[in-house]
Amino acid sequence: MHDLHVFVCTTSGRHHCGGQGSEKVLQRLRDEVERRRLGHVRTTRMGCNQQHHQGPIMIVYPDGVWYGRLRAEDVPEIVEEHLVGGRPVERLRITPDGPWGSTALT
Amino acid sequence: MHDLHVFVCTTSGRHHCGGQGSEKVLQRLRDEVERRRLGHVRTTRMGCNQQHHQGPIMIVYPDGVWYGRLRAEDVPEIVEEHLVGGRPVERLRITPDGPWGSTALT
Repeated sequence: MHDLHVFVCTTSGRHHCGGQGSEKVLQRLRDEVERRRLGHVRTTRMGCNQQHHQGPIMIVYPDGVWYGRLRAEDVPEIVEEHLVGGRPVERLRITPDGPWGSTALT
Repeated sequence: MHDLHVFVCTTSGRHHCGGQGSEKVLQRLRDEVERRRLGHVRTTRMGCNQQHHQGPIMIVYPDGVWYGRLRAEDVPEIVEEHLVGGRPVERLRITPDGPWGSTALT
């Protein structure tokens, strides 16, 4: 499997990803990566992409796969299927709204 | 040019990217993207990747190109050459240290 860089939005605020449980998503992700010793996976927090209406969100690069409306319980499936197996989890994917190049305000 | 997602570390702290001028790097990037109306470029803040010894850092995905020791004055060259021209700026590239899969602590 090629190296993967997984970003989780943890912007705080009630209507942002942080207010929708993204810290639990990130923690579960890091727990799984650590437990399974996935040396090809790097995890990093990110700021707002103006997608919190479908948050919490996660993006996997270089694949360019966006996930949304995540709960911590969804993470093991993403890890097993996508990060290990190379198959994105279609039911959890989202398409970012708005023009791609819109600059986040935060 | 394919869609690009540019991440700039803005973690605060004297020895972190934020303490080395990364806010000015991000602002200059957003100014250039806005001024040139680069609709294929999205810009997002990111947290720590444990690379602040060569910060401030920026990563361009899906290309997987890491830049380091950036000053705001370096940004127009990255925009012109890489984000518009598709040619990474070799003199500003870095290789992330340490095992890829190391989980950032922040």
